[in-house]
Amino acid sequence: MISFENDYSEGAHPLVLQRLIDTNLVQTPGYGNDEFCTAAKEKIKAACQAPDAEVFLLTGGTQTNAVVISTLLADYEGVVATVEGHVATHEAGAIEYTGHKVLTLPEHDGKLDAAELDAYVESFYKGSSYDHMVFPGMVYISHPTEFGTLYTRAELEALSAVCRKHQLPLYLDGARLGYGLMSDGTDLTLPLIAKLCDAFYIGGTKVGALCGEAVVFTHGCTPKHFITMTKQHGAMLAKGRLIGLQFDALFTDDLYFRISRHAIEMAYRLKDGLAAKGCRFFLDSPTNQQFIILDNETLRRLQEKVAVTVWGPYDEQHTIVRLVTSWATQPEAVDYLLSLL
Amino acid sequence: MISFENDYSEGAHPLVLQRLIDTNLVQTPGYGNDEFCTAAKEKIKAACQAPDAEVFLLTGGTQTNAVVISTLLADYEGVVATVEGHVATHEAGAIEYTGHKVLTLPEHDGKLDAAELDAYVESFYKGSSYDHMVFPGMVYISHPTEFGTLYTRAELEALSAVCRKHQLPLYLDGARLGYGLMSDGTDLTLPLIAKLCDAFYIGGTKVGALCGEAVVFTHGCTPKHFITMTKQHGAMLAKGRLIGLQFDALFTDDLYFRISRHAIEMAYRLKDGLAAKGCRFFLDSPTNQQFIILDNETLRRLQEKVAVTVWGPYDEQHTIVRLVTSWATQPEAVDYLLSLL
Amino acid sequence: MISFENDYSEGAHPLVLQRLIDTNLVQTPGYGNDEFCTAAKEKIKAACQAPDAEVFLLTGGTQTNAVVISTLLADYEGVVATVEGHVATHEAGAIEYTGHKVLTLPEHDGKLDAAELDAYVESFYKGSSYDHMVFPGMVYISHPTEFGTLYTRAELEALSAVCRKHQLPLYLDGARLGYGLMSDGTDLTLPLIAKLCDAFYIGGTKVGALCGEAVVFTHGCTPKHFITMTKQHGAMLAKGRLIGLQFDALFTDDLYFRISRHAIEMAYRLKDGLAAKGCRFFLDSPTNQQFIILDNETLRRLQEKVAVTVWGPYDEQHTIVRLVTSWATQPEAVDYLLSLL
Amino acid sequence: MISFENDYSEGAHPLVLQRLIDTNLVQTPGYGNDEFCTAAKEKIKAACQAPDAEVFLLTGGTQTNAVVISTLLADYEGVVATVEGHVATHEAGAIEYTGHKVLTLPEHDGKLDAAELDAYVESFYKGSSYDHMVFPGMVYISHPTEFGTLYTRAELEALSAVCRKHQLPLYLDGARLGYGLMSDGTDLTLPLIAKLCDAFYIGGTKVGALCGEAVVFTHGCTPKHFITMTKQHGAMLAKGRLIGLQFDALFTDDLYFRISRHAIEMAYRLKDGLAAKGCRFFLDSPTNQQFIILDNETLRRLQEKVAVTVWGPYDEQHTIVRLVTSWATQPEAVDYLLSLL
Repeated sequence: MISFENDYSEGAHPLVLQRLIDTNLVQTPGYGNDEFCTAAKEKIKAACQAPDAEVFLLTGGTQTNAVVISTLLADYEGVVATVEGHVATHEAGAIEYTGHKVLTLPEHDGKLDAAELDAYVESFYKGSSYDHMVFPGMVYISHPTEFGTLYTRAELEALSAVCRKHQLPLYLDGARLGYGLMSDGTDLTLPLIAKLCDAFYIGGTKVGALCGEAVVFTHGCTPKHFITMTKQHGAMLAKGRLIGLQFDALFTDDLYFRISRHAIEMAYRLKDGLAAKGCRFFLDSPTNQQFIILDNETLRRLQEKVAVTVWGPYDEQHTIVRLVTSWATQPEAVDYLLSLL
Repeated sequence: MISFENDYSEGAHPLVLQRLIDTNLVQTPGYGNDEFCTAAKEKIKAACQAPDAEVFLLTGGTQTNAVVISTLLADYEGVVATVEGHVATHEAGAIEYTGHKVLTLPEHDGKLDAAELDAYVESFYKGSSYDHMVFPGMVYISHPTEFGTLYTRAELEALSAVCRKHQLPLYLDGARLGYGLMSDGTDLTLPLIAKLCDAFYIGGTKVGALCGEAVVFTHGCTPKHFITMTKQHGAMLAKGRLIGLQFDALFTDDLYFRISRHAIEMAYRLKDGLAAKGCRFFLDSPTNQQFIILDNETLRRLQEKVAVTVWGPYDEQHTIVRLVTSWATQPEAVDYLLSLL
Repeated sequence: MISFENDYSEGAHPLVLQRLIDTNLVQTPGYGNDEFCTAAKEKIKAACQAPDAEVFLLTGGTQTNAVVISTLLADYEGVVATVEGHVATHEAGAIEYTGHKVLTLPEHDGKLDAAELDAYVESFYKGSSYDHMVFPGMVYISHPTEFGTLYTRAELEALSAVCRKHQLPLYLDGARLGYGLMSDGTDLTLPLIAKLCDAFYIGGTKVGALCGEAVVFTHGCTPKHFITMTKQHGAMLAKGRLIGLQFDALFTDDLYFRISRHAIEMAYRLKDGLAAKGCRFFLDSPTNQQFIILDNETLRRLQEKVAVTVWGPYDEQHTIVRLVTSWATQPEAVDYLLSLL
Repeated sequence: MISFENDYSEGAHPLVLQRLIDTNLVQTPGYGNDEFCTAAKEKIKAACQAPDAEVFLLTGGTQTNAVVISTLLADYEGVVATVEGHVATHEAGAIEYTGHKVLTLPEHDGKLDAAELDAYVESFYKGSSYDHMVFPGMVYISHPTEFGTLYTRAELEALSAVCRKHQLPLYLDGARLGYGLMSDGTDLTLPLIAKLCDAFYIGGTKVGALCGEAVVFTHGCTPKHFITMTKQHGAMLAKGRLIGLQFDALFTDDLYFRISRHAIEMAYRLKDGLAAKGCRFFLDSPTNQQFIILDNETLRRLQEKVAVTVWGPYDEQHTIVRLVTSWATQPEAVDYLLSLL
């Protein structure tokens, strides 16, 4: 059965895998102190046009969020996110497990609004009992969001300005960052993100790697002894090269961006086909996640042939369905899916 | 430069890597709910002769220790280990980060003594103020130990009996378990370990995998909602298949044991060669880690040609040096090392 | 300046203080193992008509909430509360500090709705990815609520039924419990609360004690080694008698209830007087906290003579003001306050 | 039965209690923002000759240690103490509960040795894998120690110098500080302690208060938002005045020192009497805790008349017994105890 369930259904992009094969018997020191990790970090800094940034290679998204957030926050601080933020909903309490509250604000197509953030922080410090409350200590967004939507450059600049006004580090979860950067019409680039955010991660797991996320700290924001903290969180691999090699491959010859663009093109082929068939969209996503509304009987029949994500009920007769493309999606698979509707 | 620094210097055993290559484009569900993880777990249970065990696949050793220990303990409990136990010394406080104390007892060639454990627990409950203290809640050992030494069957049976007497789960850290099981003269087997311990992990990272450790809970000891807890600790991979595939390969046709035996044979070749040259041993290790005492000048010259682990100073003129073999060690490399001494 | 700011402005009720004076030089064992603590616990169990309950004496409200909630929850669980629950807003992240998320539902006059709770838990387990989320593990309510409102017997029975259906312990924060129980028209009693809840605390700090809250676990819900856990949280007093003596006094000759009734009568004197003067109420509170809406100029003048709690802005010209009576409030003070409006 | 079991057997010193009585109906703001707390803090700073210090008033010793240590440490750091330090042994893992390891060094009559501390820190940073280990982040000592012994000025200066060399805050647990300062022959004073330490607490619970410990941060070491952190730890009292009033009384007219001196005189009366009877001492304590060795039969008979602390077995026929005097001990009680031996 073909799957449009997510963007982590296959192994690694063939060129990533080839890199693992080619270097397999090379001996390296452990814990990320190897030449491949060094090369990957240099290439990532170059792609970010951020020579002073520091890059760290972790294994997965929830792990990365927990390590970055808990090391950027003081004990009396929490992280601000939207009510639909991944850290607020689908990480099994990983942030709270580190002792920190997720402070939630409304979402607008999955996005955090800069003016609402500003008003919240302003009113926090105007309150009479704020020292009995959790201080806002940093801001978490994801790009693309949980709904596949994107911040515009103006929106991210506004968020960044509010964060700097209040001295709150701005952290961007880029689990699907490639798909966001390669979307038609986006006016954000990797260097702009590096300029506007204080920390972010470039997702590997969902963009061609077997596993791995590259955390970038800009503007001197690296938490002290971050390496030791990754060990304390169980996030340090003995064979750190595994992540280094993969990011080295992904950031060679623009592979990360080329395969992300492929996923976007497949998503648009799907989106256009769905629109042509009169399919209702739950929201308008410019990235590799498309959300449609299907009547339950159509869904039932579709699921006999294709794996999809059931996002939740729309009403009694309809269901919100997520369809995801990736670097691995073939045009024939898209056409097959469309033929079933 | 050739390295005898550790057993995680290379990538994966070629057959493990081949399994990743062969299955790379197969689509699977995420988070370990795939056929490869299922197959790996079944093979591991069969190898343990423990059909009722539950197996979970995590990424690294410190992560595994932290997740297993924190989920087996109640909040008022700590884990008992030797003063040299990995969890007591070299995990950056990962156990304490989860809120639990590591309660330490003396080590004897790296091993925990059953009688001392029994005396400690007995005297704990005889004390007048034990409810102001951290309760012993489980016991941690590693096999092989930090020093490469091994428990005998009688020693493990004695520890297991003391643990059961006091209802303390016995947890064995098997980061290098294969090398222990394939050592000459050991009277312990995987089924015996499964019988005597309540939880243990079969190390993959140091025995042929890119990453991955297989946790086995026996005797119905699996912590409730363990899967959710792994997510909370950032230990759940989206592409869970990565670990599943590797353990599936390692437990097909006894690969895990065969490559472990190779490392042992290389270690004995090294040990015999060192003995023949009159080299002093720091202790007598039957596994793939050999500890020797070198004068500092010899060490300095050796390090120009070979990477080794400097374990620590022996006296002002001598240093304790660790030499490690693995599934990847070639006899020519051993002979070369010997030729340098 | 007279204060209506809160119900913890004075020291102890004179009869409570007298008990401390009378027993001051009696020697007792430490840590609550004294005759006064024992007597207090027996009297509380009698007042609750819950002979099988277990009672523990802690020092303050946030401490009590953190200790009770963290010891009742498993690591993968959070506590359900309303968005305005004290644990969700004004405890500086004390619950999250113990590693647990506060899961929030809407509030209705400060109260949690049983049907909404049921729907939330039902839908949680129907979701496809609940094992990636924080499990609802218990339910927190306060009585009176943050707004001074009260659950009816029917409402509490409904909540209790939902909790039992889903095996969620129901925990009631009774920081101002006396004022709730002595309110006109309430159909809840201490024995009913003991029957319907699995854990609750009887507030002392705000009802006549210098400090101290009495936690009651019913239906065999006491967390294992709770005493050790209080020590671990820094919540165990060497002179545990301090809390025991106070609760012993409060539960002798119905003192707790008599002084609570006094506060209610003072609150009604105030409420009636405010209504007679045409004052607008922010909400209708039947207990010792009254919330009114004052124009900012009136508030400014009032604050020259009387301390009140500024709850927050109502609109640009008006402010929500909280006025609190207690066991210590004199009728003359109420009349004086009224005379100023 | 008369008790020599500990120094927290009675309520408050009569003058402390009188202060509570005299001010009982005075209305104050909550949470320590009252005139009594302010007065107490000023008097403590004066007694310390440390006008720039910051003073905070907490409730109990374990609570104070947990709040101070967890707020002074970074996540990757642990606290160094002796193996017999209170935080290492008798606080139910309260430090580990905050996520931090207690790093232990040997004890010498209960004391930490400056040279050993220096050697430990030096060797820590010389190790090849220290970034996989818990960093020493501060140093904990108690004065008097668990055994009633005292640091000399020279010893404390040496410790302070080592701490400053390595930029480790030096924290002194003064649960029984008064008894230490009033001991014959000590060359340490409160101002010297304030000069040599970066944080310490002046114990109230064991020196005349119902409860309460006064934390003093010197040299600008106050952790940021310490007040919020006390709330987060459940350590903030609504009626903060309770602690303020008591310390205000204790630091008026040298009451703290006078009553401590009384306890010391009672201890010496006891010590001299015991020596005169040929009693064996377990160690030579200059403070209010005396440790003797009794044969088990003598102990059994003594316990029929007097409560003592059984410290632990000395050998099969003998037991180590602790006898404690306090501000409340009467000479007649000492003589009675002596008459029984």
